[in-house]
Amino acid sequence: MNMKKKTEMTSNSKYKEIPGGVAAVKGIRATGVACGLKPDGALDLALFHSDAPCRTAAFFTTNKLLGAHIPVMREKLRASGGLCRALLVNSKNANCATGAAGEAANRKIAGRLAPLLSVPADQILFASTGVIGVQLPIDRIAGALPMAVGALSSSGGDVAARAIMTTDTKPKSFCIEVKDGKSAYRIAGVAKGAGMICPNMATMFVFVFTDADVPRRMLDGVCRDVLADTLNSISVDGDMSPCDTLLVMANGRSGVSVKPGTPGALRFRDALRHVCDRISMEIIRDGEGATKLVDIRVAGAKNGKDARTIARAIAHSQLVKTAIFGEDPNWGRIVSAAGASGADFDPALATLSVGKTVVYRRGRIGRVNQDIMKGDTIVIRLDAGLGDGASRFYTCDLSTEYVKINAEYTT
Amino acid sequence: MNMKKKTEMTSNSKYKEIPGGVAAVKGIRATGVACGLKPDGALDLALFHSDAPCRTAAFFTTNKLLGAHIPVMREKLRASGGLCRALLVNSKNANCATGAAGEAANRKIAGRLAPLLSVPADQILFASTGVIGVQLPIDRIAGALPMAVGALSSSGGDVAARAIMTTDTKPKSFCIEVKDGKSAYRIAGVAKGAGMICPNMATMFVFVFTDADVPRRMLDGVCRDVLADTLNSISVDGDMSPCDTLLVMANGRSGVSVKPGTPGALRFRDALRHVCDRISMEIIRDGEGATKLVDIRVAGAKNGKDARTIARAIAHSQLVKTAIFGEDPNWGRIVSAAGASGADFDPALATLSVGKTVVYRRGRIGRVNQDIMKGDTIVIRLDAGLGDGASRFYTCDLSTEYVKINAEYTT
Repeated sequence: MNMKKKTEMTSNSKYKEIPGGVAAVKGIRATGVACGLKPDGALDLALFHSDAPCRTAAFFTTNKLLGAHIPVMREKLRASGGLCRALLVNSKNANCATGAAGEAANRKIAGRLAPLLSVPADQILFASTGVIGVQLPIDRIAGALPMAVGALSSSGGDVAARAIMTTDTKPKSFCIEVKDGKSAYRIAGVAKGAGMICPNMATMFVFVFTDADVPRRMLDGVCRDVLADTLNSISVDGDMSPCDTLLVMANGRSGVSVKPGTPGALRFRDALRHVCDRISMEIIRDGEGATKLVDIRVAGAKNGKDARTIARAIAHSQLVKTAIFGEDPNWGRIVSAAGASGADFDPALATLSVGKTVVYRRGRIGRVNQDIMKGDTIVIRLDAGLGDGASRFYTCDLSTEYVKINAEYTT
Repeated sequence: MNMKKKTEMTSNSKYKEIPGGVAAVKGIRATGVACGLKPDGALDLALFHSDAPCRTAAFFTTNKLLGAHIPVMREKLRASGGLCRALLVNSKNANCATGAAGEAANRKIAGRLAPLLSVPADQILFASTGVIGVQLPIDRIAGALPMAVGALSSSGGDVAARAIMTTDTKPKSFCIEVKDGKSAYRIAGVAKGAGMICPNMATMFVFVFTDADVPRRMLDGVCRDVLADTLNSISVDGDMSPCDTLLVMANGRSGVSVKPGTPGALRFRDALRHVCDRISMEIIRDGEGATKLVDIRVAGAKNGKDARTIARAIAHSQLVKTAIFGEDPNWGRIVSAAGASGADFDPALATLSVGKTVVYRRGRIGRVNQDIMKGDTIVIRLDAGLGDGASRFYTCDLSTEYVKINAEYTT
């Protein structure tokens, strides 16, 4: 039944895929261990290590409740000039709404890791995801660090991807190779996220590693640009997480330098967009309880902002999402969500298609096929008929399974 | 299991309740008949008639997709100087996204009713609720009008309340008596609404009748004032309907005149607020799939607008609503929703209680009782600790039953 079991993401053939996840990037080793946060002994602690310092671009949630790791990371990146050598990640506990004690716990655990890796504590970032409002068990995590350091390896990318999962049903991790003249470099991403997905800066945890040599300011700018229509244009449930974190880490170990204003910079941007777009799709396909990917394409809005407002409103409508889950051809809910969005909208000028069927054209009801909501991908095209604003947004359906998963998360 | 079966609304003892629904108001007769819109022969057409013209205040949805009845009603009220003699309402078909044909159908049906009631067509309002995007079957409805007119009676209030229901599980209709010195008048409300509830002007269908004599401008002003913290402060699912309509109709038949700036005006405002608040609670208790009423009280926000933004964000969070359905004491989601709301919010200053338990106080985790989400009413108190802005909002939980109801609405 579940789409996730039927459909795997197909990779864009433009880039060669390399097995091994993020540890396929030159200089990166990774691992995942079980430190006892998950009661069933499942993997819950991931460690990533680079043998050269990584220039790091970081983007965080705009939620005013912040996971304790976020202020600590910001401070460390400031202190180190944006350099990072290691990234520790635990799942099952978000270390969020834990106040000053939570930040102290984050620093303490990273401090214990520093001598084991022989790197300055400022260059060790430590992120947490899971339940909000429970203090981190410091000793349990710190006790597992020697084992994790010993297990670091260049084949540990996939196990690390498993260790950061919470309600995800499958790991999200892959590596591509980017040709740059006669040389090549790699970009790899690892992510977690299935619920509390409505990012406004970055989504849940997305960690991208590359062995390209990229100036930090350029890295920042390219990320910001790519984020807008990839990771910031998705929603599972309309709830923004207080822990959203995107890190893009470049260690330069491929020997390929990416310089601003060159064709190589455009290639890097394109490759990073590919990585972020693919992670976006994987997160939505693995949305909590999701059985369908919904691809919302708004055109003809008054301007780009209105297009985005309309696309988001459709993506967030519980009534649209439940109708899609039930394969109920109740397209009127889509027009209603657009009308309620607050953006300029005139139903007499709008045209709506679901899949290949035009169900509504400028005030007139079209032919409504009973099958329009069938299939594991639903493409909704709404042309507002007002201007040239366009936007695209991914979401998933809202299923009884979603409610079940979230009705019993902590218990 | 369902709260609705366990808990009935208790009426405020301040006002005497009169049986008979809206037809207990002097001069009002009502009825409900089956005209064949609902396939199972259930009641689907209600008619309300006043033997004297009613001064009428009307409030509609701010959705840019509008049910066809809304522009037609606006025009008629303009033409008649805000007078209304009869109100026809059908359920099961919203006559929405039906373009010019939809408006013509509305006028045609009201036109057929005019000679049967011997009242001008401009004083007959006709509202529709139900599925969006299907043309109204004119002949079916018009064919049932003679029967409806013949059945009008002063004991028809309850059957009329049944005829306007869609996914509601019970009718929402009651009448109170308001003492005014030695005289008295009555105010009665009838409403429908269980889904697509997130009003921004009025909610679904709420029709209030009174036999008080109230100047129209005053009626407008009092309604606007009362709406803000009653019908406009509720949400079942965050989806605003394109058909929301509130009509308040005063026919003056009690002989009691309510004059602006008098103690009688304050009494009228208080009574109308009581009616609208009670309807709000009844709509939320009967929310689609709802098992719990969630009463959200935000205090200490920077200002009133921020308080409302925070209260709405909590009320709209799928994660908060599913946790409450599952009785999962996952209070961190409430703080996260507040943080993501966009309003000023500092977790280090905020205090959260669920029921009588303080679960979070200014950056410190409190005692979390496993039972905090049990019971059929959950009171959430969030003090932002920033200022004196306060707001209250009603919502319900999000259940698997909600998804089931909405996954198969048209089919």
